[in-house]
Amino acid sequence: MVTGALLKEFTRLVGANNVFTHEADRLTYSYDAAVLTPVMPAIILRPTHSEALGEVVRLCHENSIPVTVRGAGTNLSGGTIPSEGGAVILTHALSRILEINEEDLYAVVEPGVITARFAAAVESKGLFYPPDPGSQAVSTLGGNVAENAGGLRGLKYGVTGDYVMGLEFFDSQGNLVKTGSRTVKCVTGYNLGALLVGSEGTLGVFDKIILKLIPPPAARKSMMATFSQVQKASEAVAAIIAQRIVPATLEFMDNFTLRTVEDYSKVGLPIEAAALLLVELDGHRAQVEDDAQKVESICRSSGATNLRVAQDDSERDKVWEARRTALSALAKLRPTVVLEDATVPRSKIPAMMQALEEISRKHALTIGTFGHAGDGNLHPTILTDRRDKEEWQRVEAAIHDIFDHALTLGGTLSGEHGIGLAKSHYLEKETTRATLLYSRRIKNALDPKNILNPGKIIGE
Amino acid sequence: MVTGALLKEFTRLVGANNVFTHEADRLTYSYDAAVLTPVMPAIILRPTHSEALGEVVRLCHENSIPVTVRGAGTNLSGGTIPSEGGAVILTHALSRILEINEEDLYAVVEPGVITARFAAAVESKGLFYPPDPGSQAVSTLGGNVAENAGGLRGLKYGVTGDYVMGLEFFDSQGNLVKTGSRTVKCVTGYNLGALLVGSEGTLGVFDKIILKLIPPPAARKSMMATFSQVQKASEAVAAIIAQRIVPATLEFMDNFTLRTVEDYSKVGLPIEAAALLLVELDGHRAQVEDDAQKVESICRSSGATNLRVAQDDSERDKVWEARRTALSALAKLRPTVVLEDATVPRSKIPAMMQALEEISRKHALTIGTFGHAGDGNLHPTILTDRRDKEEWQRVEAAIHDIFDHALTLGGTLSGEHGIGLAKSHYLEKETTRATLLYSRRIKNALDPKNILNPGKIIGE
Repeated sequence: MVTGALLKEFTRLVGANNVFTHEADRLTYSYDAAVLTPVMPAIILRPTHSEALGEVVRLCHENSIPVTVRGAGTNLSGGTIPSEGGAVILTHALSRILEINEEDLYAVVEPGVITARFAAAVESKGLFYPPDPGSQAVSTLGGNVAENAGGLRGLKYGVTGDYVMGLEFFDSQGNLVKTGSRTVKCVTGYNLGALLVGSEGTLGVFDKIILKLIPPPAARKSMMATFSQVQKASEAVAAIIAQRIVPATLEFMDNFTLRTVEDYSKVGLPIEAAALLLVELDGHRAQVEDDAQKVESICRSSGATNLRVAQDDSERDKVWEARRTALSALAKLRPTVVLEDATVPRSKIPAMMQALEEISRKHALTIGTFGHAGDGNLHPTILTDRRDKEEWQRVEAAIHDIFDHALTLGGTLSGEHGIGLAKSHYLEKETTRATLLYSRRIKNALDPKNILNPGKIIGE
Repeated sequence: MVTGALLKEFTRLVGANNVFTHEADRLTYSYDAAVLTPVMPAIILRPTHSEALGEVVRLCHENSIPVTVRGAGTNLSGGTIPSEGGAVILTHALSRILEINEEDLYAVVEPGVITARFAAAVESKGLFYPPDPGSQAVSTLGGNVAENAGGLRGLKYGVTGDYVMGLEFFDSQGNLVKTGSRTVKCVTGYNLGALLVGSEGTLGVFDKIILKLIPPPAARKSMMATFSQVQKASEAVAAIIAQRIVPATLEFMDNFTLRTVEDYSKVGLPIEAAALLLVELDGHRAQVEDDAQKVESICRSSGATNLRVAQDDSERDKVWEARRTALSALAKLRPTVVLEDATVPRSKIPAMMQALEEISRKHALTIGTFGHAGDGNLHPTILTDRRDKEEWQRVEAAIHDIFDHALTLGGTLSGEHGIGLAKSHYLEKETTRATLLYSRRIKNALDPKNILNPGKIIGE
């Protein structure tokens, strides 16, 4: 715990209402959505303006206190688990949308703005901010940038990082660094913004984010295709991509997931199906109609047993809402849910699906699989109980096998959930020793005291 | 010059045919397309395979020889001007397209592949690589990535960096670093690829580049709008963007530029016009038709005196070819041509145009302006003679004024040409002292001997 003169300093900076040191508070911020051991921080701080944020970082640096910045804590790789004796900086009170520029199509926000609130504010101006991570109802834009969060629309619209035009952030000593611009093109200096995107709080503390906005699509169409075999659904995914169609969203759910989701959300999903594809097309009305016909024909020739087009917005929203509950629905079934994030080139989706079935059998585990099939980004979800040591060993072996298969298929450890604490020891396996050293040199140079979210991504 | 044992070592690595030390060769590689003082390198090396490239870097590191990698040398900010006593590494012989993956929409290339050759190879597979820098007929993909090159299609399709999915590069010691993936989403480790994009050869030497490909648009339509006043043309640009239309290309030429281009290329440009907008729309046929009508109506209500739609591909190609000759055409008029790259938020284009006219008058200089108006990225081009000291002083004052105005309007020093040697001393002005120090810490950590293209971007 932080006491005495230092506690007074923090209190002076952020105000007594924004300093928390009670055990219950520290416990509250000791964990996130990843299945990892909690770590108790020493103090929780909630700065309410930029200057205080910078001064807090400076004070932590002077006193060698590790800093973990936390938005909504929805992190799935342990990125917001604090360090022993460290400070947690909450961004809730830094939640202003500073500007939505309708002429130049950008917005400037503070890091604590809730993703869905921002998307709605942008929509009310007739514009569109596409990134829609599963946790968007509670996640923050700062967290999205720190993790380079993906979402359902990644296939056509890309991920959070594709919308970051500029950043202002505090370095490890609390000095303000500005990078990027309000212009659509900028090559002034190193692209520090792009380096900070997905750096999981290890290289700087975000103060302001400049985000690109785009015109919204004129039309949308959602459809649901039912398959009697997982392989057929996954072949349909590969065929859609290979035929040069780019849906906004192309999601997959296996039978286990869709039954669980239906049980939880009661939207009328076809629980007898072996697999479901959810497709959303958007763009010009004529383009949407043409693509819809092509998608329908591909699904049918891949063996879809049923195909249903959402008749109106409410039906459409209902299905997407249901899809978004997948993790929550699965999480209710057993004490521990491990949500994996293996990603492969899109044509390898059928092979990866096959591998997941085999891994599930081999380790006698329940693995529900859903995810952004169009991106090659699957979320195999292992339902387990971490307290059961024998079963947990099988879970760990299964995770290892999942990574191995993804890499063998030319894939990657993480499509969108981050490396955090959970996967940092696998990093060298996917890349090279030199990659890890190169990354660590950057970190050491920018944060020699190692106070910015230590241990994340590149290990210790 | 490099002699003796070291020369032997280099020769052993790349072969005698690929080592150049004659004065004429060294002179040839002492300058690039920027208006800056040439610097003689000590040796020119042309590795023909990956391993040799890595070993050359390693040997340069061991012997503290500065390394400047050079593609086509079309750089406009001095990024390929070598260091005194340094080595120039040519990438011409590393020019294989290793893979064009039609199922997963990516390609893997060596750095020396010519941009236009790559685009054509991709097109022949029914796919599309959008970045099209003005110099694409000779520029290399490695150079494009090192400079984050833009081009005419930046407005809708983004710049080179938006297509880099992964990179393999040698660090300053010649060790291979791998970053990114063949998957569309990847958050495995720091986004080193994005940091290397636009880092102008200062942080690593590219070995392989993984580039994203997309399906080509189904239809295209090009049109040319003539205006009797520059302001009206620039207002039309702002209005097109504000009305949520995203043309593939939206180019501007002032009267001086279009007369010069017409004189050079004889394609029938309207030489009496004060300004010309060249617009290309692409996408689904119905979308293109709808947008074309809107653009036409905006241009007319902004006061366009004439509007011509290209009737076929050959007419279309002729106009774009003419546009691409703008720099060459202007360069013939006087001994020295300074091509600037000021970029502003798009709604500020009218104000920037106005400022450029005033700057031209104030310093009694000929400034032709053309560029990617839709991106807010103008190329004011000063025609001068560097040997005329008095005039050159006025040129330098005008450049200073151009930067000042761009920054005042919320813009940036460089949209796409890079910082190089030419603008590194302006960097702190746009950002902060902390930004410069942050950048230098990265450079020092990754290249402690400062052998990778020293002095570029972040100064000495």
